[in-house]
Amino acid sequence: MTFSVTVLGSSSAIPTLVRNPSAHLLNADERLFLIDCAEGTQLALRRNRIHFQRIRNIMISHLHGDHFYGLIGLLTSLHLLGRKDEMHIYAHPMLESIINIQLEVSKTTLLYPLYFHPLNPDVHEVIFEDNRVIAESFPLLHSVPTCGFVFREKLKYRRYLQKRSYAYCSDTAYTESIIPYVKETSLLYHEATFMDKMAKAAAEKMHSTTVEAATLAMKAGVRQLMIGHYSARYDDLAPLLEEAQAIFPQTILAEDGKTIPIG
Amino acid sequence: MTFSVTVLGSSSAIPTLVRNPSAHLLNADERLFLIDCAEGTQLALRRNRIHFQRIRNIMISHLHGDHFYGLIGLLTSLHLLGRKDEMHIYAHPMLESIINIQLEVSKTTLLYPLYFHPLNPDVHEVIFEDNRVIAESFPLLHSVPTCGFVFREKLKYRRYLQKRSYAYCSDTAYTESIIPYVKETSLLYHEATFMDKMAKAAAEKMHSTTVEAATLAMKAGVRQLMIGHYSARYDDLAPLLEEAQAIFPQTILAEDGKTIPIG
Repeated sequence: MTFSVTVLGSSSAIPTLVRNPSAHLLNADERLFLIDCAEGTQLALRRNRIHFQRIRNIMISHLHGDHFYGLIGLLTSLHLLGRKDEMHIYAHPMLESIINIQLEVSKTTLLYPLYFHPLNPDVHEVIFEDNRVIAESFPLLHSVPTCGFVFREKLKYRRYLQKRSYAYCSDTAYTESIIPYVKETSLLYHEATFMDKMAKAAAEKMHSTTVEAATLAMKAGVRQLMIGHYSARYDDLAPLLEEAQAIFPQTILAEDGKTIPIG
Repeated sequence: MTFSVTVLGSSSAIPTLVRNPSAHLLNADERLFLIDCAEGTQLALRRNRIHFQRIRNIMISHLHGDHFYGLIGLLTSLHLLGRKDEMHIYAHPMLESIINIQLEVSKTTLLYPLYFHPLNPDVHEVIFEDNRVIAESFPLLHSVPTCGFVFREKLKYRRYLQKRSYAYCSDTAYTESIIPYVKETSLLYHEATFMDKMAKAAAEKMHSTTVEAATLAMKAGVRQLMIGHYSARYDDLAPLLEEAQAIFPQTILAEDGKTIPIG
């Protein structure tokens, strides 16, 4: 069974011609989870030939635009394309109002049931569970309430194998408080908006550096680290990768369109 | 002086890999007007190397998502890139609430003054005027309140020349009530979502066909017609162009990234 993540956007705040802002598509044993949904995500899904009607759960980490401005367009397109299946959104409770006001002004009544599940950014809790996957949210450290997520495989046939897991931490300042939640995950995605020499700017903006992401990965004992959410100032990402790998060699770069098999 | 329009999106409701939904950039004697702003418009502006900080006025025809879902992202990016200049939005009054709720949840206070000018979709009125350009709105015939726009050159040095003008009519069913407003314009953009054999579907959805757009152009005596807002069902646009040209030979196709000099 597949367990992989496809990067739909690796940029921070502003989209560039080569990098969309945040969105990841996790295929966890054939359950498709969309994590964050920046402007342009529906096109990125098409570009990566992901059958987006198969997505049933969308997790939104926080309400900065580069993490959710594409959601209303995706939900509308799913409707126009005839979706009938349920869709579940896990997000800050205000997102429901934002989506609903936009559906109302366009006189759109969705053809499919849409459920909002409010996230509590102050606690660690299970937010989704079925027979194959369990997903948890936990607090990150950012300028607005923000959740990290971890998805763990729980298939019976993998009883004697190492179970696979994926943790998503964006956006966040460096904080060791998240270590218990992401400990020993197969793949940790941790934002690295800036290089080390901009550590001061990173702290002020409550973002992380390459060095901080790598340090966190090392301390949490994860198998692999993926960095991303790059500032638009970086055209060439090789120096970011080098900085992180100097501390945590099993680091890879998030790049738009890249699919990473997990475990 | 330049008088031209750049097509940033020529698709109807759903973006495709080759066509964005509606957005046009009018350069009217070096005043840049953005007309509609679908998801992905900020990237389309970049792709077409349009310096988007020069835009000072944005007209939104109506509140269907394929005409405004890209606005919040564009306004946010302008802010993040340090804009200080005024921005003016001409739209249905509900758009102000939609933008403001999204700025509030992200705790964003724009660095630049943003003014909303409510449009009245029931009347024909002047909505913008300076020493070079005058812009008017007028009622279209659609399933939600919708405005057409016409921009007319008024430069003194063109006193003895034919003045140039651009009319934008999307979305609308066929209606001859708009003829007085678009009469003899240099370039009329009129939506043509469907081909003639889908005339019934077009009428039901309050959209137009190629034949209707061409008929309107002929009756209004415009110099040139541009059709667009194509249904995603059409991969090849040549048959749409043929149908329209059979009635009004001076018809061209809206295509993403195409710039049309006017007059």
